[in-house]
Amino acid sequence: MRLARHGELGNEKPLIGDADGNWWDLSPIVTDIDPDLLGGGLDAARAAVEAGDLPAVTDVGRFGPPLTGIGKIICIGLNYRDHAAETGAAIPAEPILFMKTTDTVVGAGDTVLIPRTSVKTDWEVELAVVIGAEARYLDSPEEAASKIFGYAISNDVSEREFQIERGGQWDKGKNCETFNPLGPWILTADEVADPQQLGLRLWVNGEQRQNGSTADMIFGVHHLVWYLSQFMVLRPGDVINTGTPAGVAMGIEGQPYLRAGDVVELEIDGLGKQRQTFQQA
Amino acid sequence: MRLARHGELGNEKPLIGDADGNWWDLSPIVTDIDPDLLGGGLDAARAAVEAGDLPAVTDVGRFGPPLTGIGKIICIGLNYRDHAAETGAAIPAEPILFMKTTDTVVGAGDTVLIPRTSVKTDWEVELAVVIGAEARYLDSPEEAASKIFGYAISNDVSEREFQIERGGQWDKGKNCETFNPLGPWILTADEVADPQQLGLRLWVNGEQRQNGSTADMIFGVHHLVWYLSQFMVLRPGDVINTGTPAGVAMGIEGQPYLRAGDVVELEIDGLGKQRQTFQQA
Repeated sequence: MRLARHGELGNEKPLIGDADGNWWDLSPIVTDIDPDLLGGGLDAARAAVEAGDLPAVTDVGRFGPPLTGIGKIICIGLNYRDHAAETGAAIPAEPILFMKTTDTVVGAGDTVLIPRTSVKTDWEVELAVVIGAEARYLDSPEEAASKIFGYAISNDVSEREFQIERGGQWDKGKNCETFNPLGPWILTADEVADPQQLGLRLWVNGEQRQNGSTADMIFGVHHLVWYLSQFMVLRPGDVINTGTPAGVAMGIEGQPYLRAGDVVELEIDGLGKQRQTFQQA
Repeated sequence: MRLARHGELGNEKPLIGDADGNWWDLSPIVTDIDPDLLGGGLDAARAAVEAGDLPAVTDVGRFGPPLTGIGKIICIGLNYRDHAAETGAAIPAEPILFMKTTDTVVGAGDTVLIPRTSVKTDWEVELAVVIGAEARYLDSPEEAASKIFGYAISNDVSEREFQIERGGQWDKGKNCETFNPLGPWILTADEVADPQQLGLRLWVNGEQRQNGSTADMIFGVHHLVWYLSQFMVLRPGDVINTGTPAGVAMGIEGQPYLRAGDVVELEIDGLGKQRQTFQQA
């Protein structure tokens, strides 16, 4: 199933949908798409869909963030060989991790703000993993699958000067206002046959800039969940941004960083499409 | 005033207290010590205390984290000259920032877990700044004072191997389970005459290891709030760990990292005292 939240900012309502693009109002049976729902499972929601108990929603309107109450967003750096190469970095021996704060999350079609002094705002299409069960010191990557609720598109928007040239630690360029468009929906893990066989694509003003596959990840999704669980506790509603393939502005000749008015579109197989207009903060 | 939360883990109740150590049950008038309360101000709570309307609490018992619903925890690295020197790092030209996730927060007297493979778990006594109003692109450090709700003690527990030797970005060694004891209370900013004149002290098994003053910060509290507001939005309930003075295990001859059974005590002028026993995860 697909899970989403739609409506005006701050007043979103929960939706459930299928692969044919049908949507139903989930608010009769759940308060929101939140960690409690993810941890508790979708049995009741699925049954309500099958029984025809939920009102159909034909005009979804704005998609908000597909999940509220996110606990933490862990990001993996340089997790595609071609992206590591384009940034001039060595292939990591083990996953690099950094953080985004949860208040950077916006909907898939929301405006993204270019920070006031920014000249190097960049894009990164990424597969987001949404956690559905506590993961703490997992014994092996094989244990990870049962901890994953689903997947979504994430734009790990990055300010490269803040990230790299302003005195240490990437977090400084990763946490600006609106810097994490997420969604439009979460696709449950049972409908993703192989998370390492998903195409990821990104366009800027209609020109394709990224065209990768999760097959090229250095550390796959299950490895990442296992690995992270050795350093922190993963909980329902946590999100992992698993890294971006080649084709970011920093790695392209001329470094065409984003400017006010630019339109960025992102797509991952089965996970829908994002479209953001960038504006000056 | 002092604000705290007491009682069993997960079932804490709000308290308000004065500088003489008196505590009153705040639950008749607020649901919890949370961002809404901080953003809304304490007028009603102060009035209730002055009117004698709140039940006195003579046996506080366990202090939980003094704030729930924390939005983000931003940490400043190498913000004391003597600590930068002991780690062999240069004095930063501008603040270094990294992140702790909010689920690392525990109470001032709670057990702290040494990660399973850790051999370099370290302590850091720090002044925590608690934000009380939105701060977004502040024009100057002078504007910062009005955005600060109060102050608390933070132990920025750190695993140095994870932080430094495991493939880039400090966050990997900063976010282990229970790695941020906070409290015992938040002291409102009006009762801190000068946040740059506070002594910070830390003992391990009774032996004093840190003995610093916020006077020795490279970047002061108001500068930090102004600076951070250029890179992200600060909101009520956000916390800034402002860095640690010299005397961490990494900087001491023999590097006496923490082991199961070690007891760490921390103190900052006016902000009370923490005491944690470390145990193996």
